[in-house]
Amino acid sequence: MAGNESQRIARLAQIFSPGGERVLRGIGDDAAVVRPAGAVIVTSVDAIVEGVHFTRETFSPRAIGHKAAASALSDLAAMGARPGELYIAAGVPHDFDDEQFDELAAGIEAVAVSVGATVCGGDLSAAAELWLSVTVVGYADSESEVVGRDGARPGDVIAVTGRLGGSAAGLAAINGLAVEGAGALIARHLAPTPQFAAGRALAAVGATAMIDVSDGLGRDAGQIAAISGCALEIELPRLPLADGVVVAAAQLGREPQKFAAESGEEYELLCTLPSGAVAATAAAVAATGNELAVIGQALPGNGVRFLGLDGRPVEIVGFEHFD
Amino acid sequence: MAGNESQRIARLAQIFSPGGERVLRGIGDDAAVVRPAGAVIVTSVDAIVEGVHFTRETFSPRAIGHKAAASALSDLAAMGARPGELYIAAGVPHDFDDEQFDELAAGIEAVAVSVGATVCGGDLSAAAELWLSVTVVGYADSESEVVGRDGARPGDVIAVTGRLGGSAAGLAAINGLAVEGAGALIARHLAPTPQFAAGRALAAVGATAMIDVSDGLGRDAGQIAAISGCALEIELPRLPLADGVVVAAAQLGREPQKFAAESGEEYELLCTLPSGAVAATAAAVAATGNELAVIGQALPGNGVRFLGLDGRPVEIVGFEHFD
Repeated sequence: MAGNESQRIARLAQIFSPGGERVLRGIGDDAAVVRPAGAVIVTSVDAIVEGVHFTRETFSPRAIGHKAAASALSDLAAMGARPGELYIAAGVPHDFDDEQFDELAAGIEAVAVSVGATVCGGDLSAAAELWLSVTVVGYADSESEVVGRDGARPGDVIAVTGRLGGSAAGLAAINGLAVEGAGALIARHLAPTPQFAAGRALAAVGATAMIDVSDGLGRDAGQIAAISGCALEIELPRLPLADGVVVAAAQLGREPQKFAAESGEEYELLCTLPSGAVAATAAAVAATGNELAVIGQALPGNGVRFLGLDGRPVEIVGFEHFD
Repeated sequence: MAGNESQRIARLAQIFSPGGERVLRGIGDDAAVVRPAGAVIVTSVDAIVEGVHFTRETFSPRAIGHKAAASALSDLAAMGARPGELYIAAGVPHDFDDEQFDELAAGIEAVAVSVGATVCGGDLSAAAELWLSVTVVGYADSESEVVGRDGARPGDVIAVTGRLGGSAAGLAAINGLAVEGAGALIARHLAPTPQFAAGRALAAVGATAMIDVSDGLGRDAGQIAAISGCALEIELPRLPLADGVVVAAAQLGREPQKFAAESGEEYELLCTLPSGAVAATAAAVAATGNELAVIGQALPGNGVRFLGLDGRPVEIVGFEHFD
């Protein structure tokens, strides 16, 4: 039973909170009208597609909404921006019913509320498979506050927030791996948290380049290396591992650090920093309730090199959504 | 043959022009960074889905890109806003090849360039069917410059820009109807033009409510009536008809005015105006190269009523994408 478009939009206007005084017009007109909350606007769009990024067997409607919103917002966190508004287009199959639809919207709203953002508009269409496109708008007070992928320089250290591997271990748990702490690992995979406070702390103390860990450390570091024009060398023994990852990796017959380096959809922040800024940066990140680990260094050259426990290069696989 | 995501993104950075000095960071980072071009930001998202809004048999890749961008931008035109940036998510099936993908992007870019907007970001995913979600960002100098759907008042006149029915006649021509001027009608359906200049003229001279004609005059007028809290009475004999519509409607056994009133995806602007402002408004719209026709009046009450040639109410069908 699929509800019709206008009925669903009417319900969405109830599920999504109206936003603060900056939101002059929200859902319900041709377009939303918003007063910018900063001198520069930071905008990103991120889509998730059934069968590519999630399955309805694994993800509840609420988790789909949560993940779509969190992964999109994570791109703003990775710029050091403040969150503002979300605009969401959805393709909704006929067998996705009204109750599931409302749960999906509630998952989006929960993430938006948790970071102080407002869902201000959207578009619904019938579709063969479920997909969501989430455009997120954030703000910064100046261009120089924003951290891109292009500023890493030889001599910088490489650092990462949080602990890695939990998302891949959670996926393995969802797929049937019996592992201690499975609940927390599964939540890590299904319901990630965009790291806005850490991102702003990193931007404020002088991160030179930053990206969120969405495609696996190798591929994400590769983006910084390619755009910055330097090499990134990451020492696997220095990777901070999420609780339960050592055991889960062992059960899967995998080396834990390599397993963590290949884990995508972590939504922690990978950055480069001047080496002199590490102590202040770690303290600033700790003050946000997250943590920062130095995992390597930027060097002249190009590409990403991982060093294993024995100090020799190790092959790390990133993942490519589009194949 | 599907190219991989990063190769396609690299080509997009070539197809899409980099934008003016306001675009501080465009395609290629976690997010775009833009300096706003006005005191308020006007944002909308619009999706088109294969099998719902277009088929690949009927639409070339270029036409799909054109229509996605034009229909999204049209929502900004209908607010009286100036166009700024586009952010595009796409679901791309495996059988949509690199050449088709580049053509689709070129169709988007052509529309963006034609209105002075810049494609600043996007996201690509594999998908079972082709879909595009286009978020458009525009600007206005103040909240009061923006025209929503909520300001129609009893006593206002109802007016529409351009001439109607061409989109539905074009669709009939695509589907095999042999009609004079088929080329222009087909272009009308496949490659609509967002009416920014007319929208800004209407906003400047005091339109009280405005919407673009995307779902058919009945449904779009219904939005204004519902949100404004008044009734709209439209006189079918006053509808301005596009060239070729009378003949096409006759060939289809349809009454031309009714045919035009039911034609969706026209992307002309439907508005309400204080009755004293009609002459100045028509002149302002004419100065933009478009034209304005008065087609009815707002009254106390609710809903939309169409009057036929004999002055009696006529049933008009709108279309509902989501069924």
